[in-house]
Amino acid sequence: MKRIVLGVQYDGAPWQGWQTQPNGKTVQDRLEAALQKFTQAMIATTCAGRTDSGVHALEQVVHFDTELARDTSSWVRGLNAFLPPSIAVRWACETPQADQGTTSDDQFHARFSATTRTYHYLLYNHPVRSPLLEGKVGWCFRPLDVELMREAAAHLIGTHDFSAFRAVECQARSPVRTMDQIRIEQRGDLIVFSLQANAFLHHMVRNIMGSLIYAGIGKRPPEWIAELLQQRDRSLSAPTFMPDGLYLAQVGYDSKWNLPQQQVAILPWI
Amino acid sequence: MKRIVLGVQYDGAPWQGWQTQPNGKTVQDRLEAALQKFTQAMIATTCAGRTDSGVHALEQVVHFDTELARDTSSWVRGLNAFLPPSIAVRWACETPQADQGTTSDDQFHARFSATTRTYHYLLYNHPVRSPLLEGKVGWCFRPLDVELMREAAAHLIGTHDFSAFRAVECQARSPVRTMDQIRIEQRGDLIVFSLQANAFLHHMVRNIMGSLIYAGIGKRPPEWIAELLQQRDRSLSAPTFMPDGLYLAQVGYDSKWNLPQQQVAILPWI
Repeated sequence: MKRIVLGVQYDGAPWQGWQTQPNGKTVQDRLEAALQKFTQAMIATTCAGRTDSGVHALEQVVHFDTELARDTSSWVRGLNAFLPPSIAVRWACETPQADQGTTSDDQFHARFSATTRTYHYLLYNHPVRSPLLEGKVGWCFRPLDVELMREAAAHLIGTHDFSAFRAVECQARSPVRTMDQIRIEQRGDLIVFSLQANAFLHHMVRNIMGSLIYAGIGKRPPEWIAELLQQRDRSLSAPTFMPDGLYLAQVGYDSKWNLPQQQVAILPWI
Repeated sequence: MKRIVLGVQYDGAPWQGWQTQPNGKTVQDRLEAALQKFTQAMIATTCAGRTDSGVHALEQVVHFDTELARDTSSWVRGLNAFLPPSIAVRWACETPQADQGTTSDDQFHARFSATTRTYHYLLYNHPVRSPLLEGKVGWCFRPLDVELMREAAAHLIGTHDFSAFRAVECQARSPVRTMDQIRIEQRGDLIVFSLQANAFLHHMVRNIMGSLIYAGIGKRPPEWIAELLQQRDRSLSAPTFMPDGLYLAQVGYDSKWNLPQQQVAILPWI
């Protein structure tokens, strides 16, 4: 048995998220359908981070087990031939074989071996919506103060109980996460947010975005974010912001796994 | 009677080009439908450059005549309320009123007053297609030599008979055009081409792109472009390249018209 790992990029707009659904309109369903067409076998996949409906991935990481021998470039070309235009495999590699009785330290797992996740949020800040970035960016027509949003975001760095930014349906056992870094950069009419944490709760980035925007338009002071963290009450923070601008950008793993991961720019030219 | 001018941005992928068609699936049809809903009147529009099916516009310029008095910001908001997500009006302004017997020098016309047109072509150069830029970029999986393409493009600068790059269906009276400038810049996996001319023939940019790519992959030497110009035979140049990466970027007018044109970046962050 081999464990094959894939780097997968997708536009989330046409799909009901990553995770398989009875109606089959998800990224996982389409990837597993392509695997079946390419291998003539039913193969189940596991991903690093299950993205919601409308959320994109610059580089989702996925693994599956198979007895089949294919070289890594033929996994890439073969699967891409059966995938729709909105989904593509960027790379494939083989990880060391799992023997009976191996520990998790010896066996790569797309989700459990991941040490960090980085999400980007692209926010278009212009009086008129953008036809060319429709579905690819969030939109705020009121002028945003980037400096106020940076001050607000600074309160989120470190290990906190993120209950204030956690969806009611979230199934994680603990609301505690460690936020390593939040960068906020203005590029023309776009504001690019990059958040890196050990892991994220359900809707956590979109809930944080809603509250950072409240700070950016001056509806709340930056310190409000610290209060929200302390209060741990989802009903006090801002509404969940739209999924359109959210991208799973990178999943971090120990270098011992030797994955051919690429630093994928949010879009290729920045 | 007032002549109103609009700056219009659109994603061309869902539309069969600019020009009105019996089936109504064009940008002009949708803009005129929005005008009708907003004004309760039938209003015909004229654009600076009729884009083909699948071709985008960062800033198309459009004019129409009306007796109605609206301030310019209400034209923008009112029309955007009735336009689909893939089309948006960015600005509106009023040009001096046309009196009987005025000459073309006194009366603004979106097409006839235009002195230059600038098109951008976005080319994604990567072994794997881009799910996130689907419909927004052309794709070439073979490595391209930008320097060879620049050498090839240099032969096109100046006033030439562009018959080699003119579609059979082209209705222009003369095949002579003046190419002011071609810039080719690499940004990550993208190559951005910017072409400025007094005007373009039908399919001219896409036909030039096909031939520049032949130079970039080394299939033809850069001097081939000069030969093609001299031979004036469309059948000798490369096939028409895909419309996906083509954007009408800017239309140039005399500053006396005082249009609130914006230098729209190809996408907002470059």
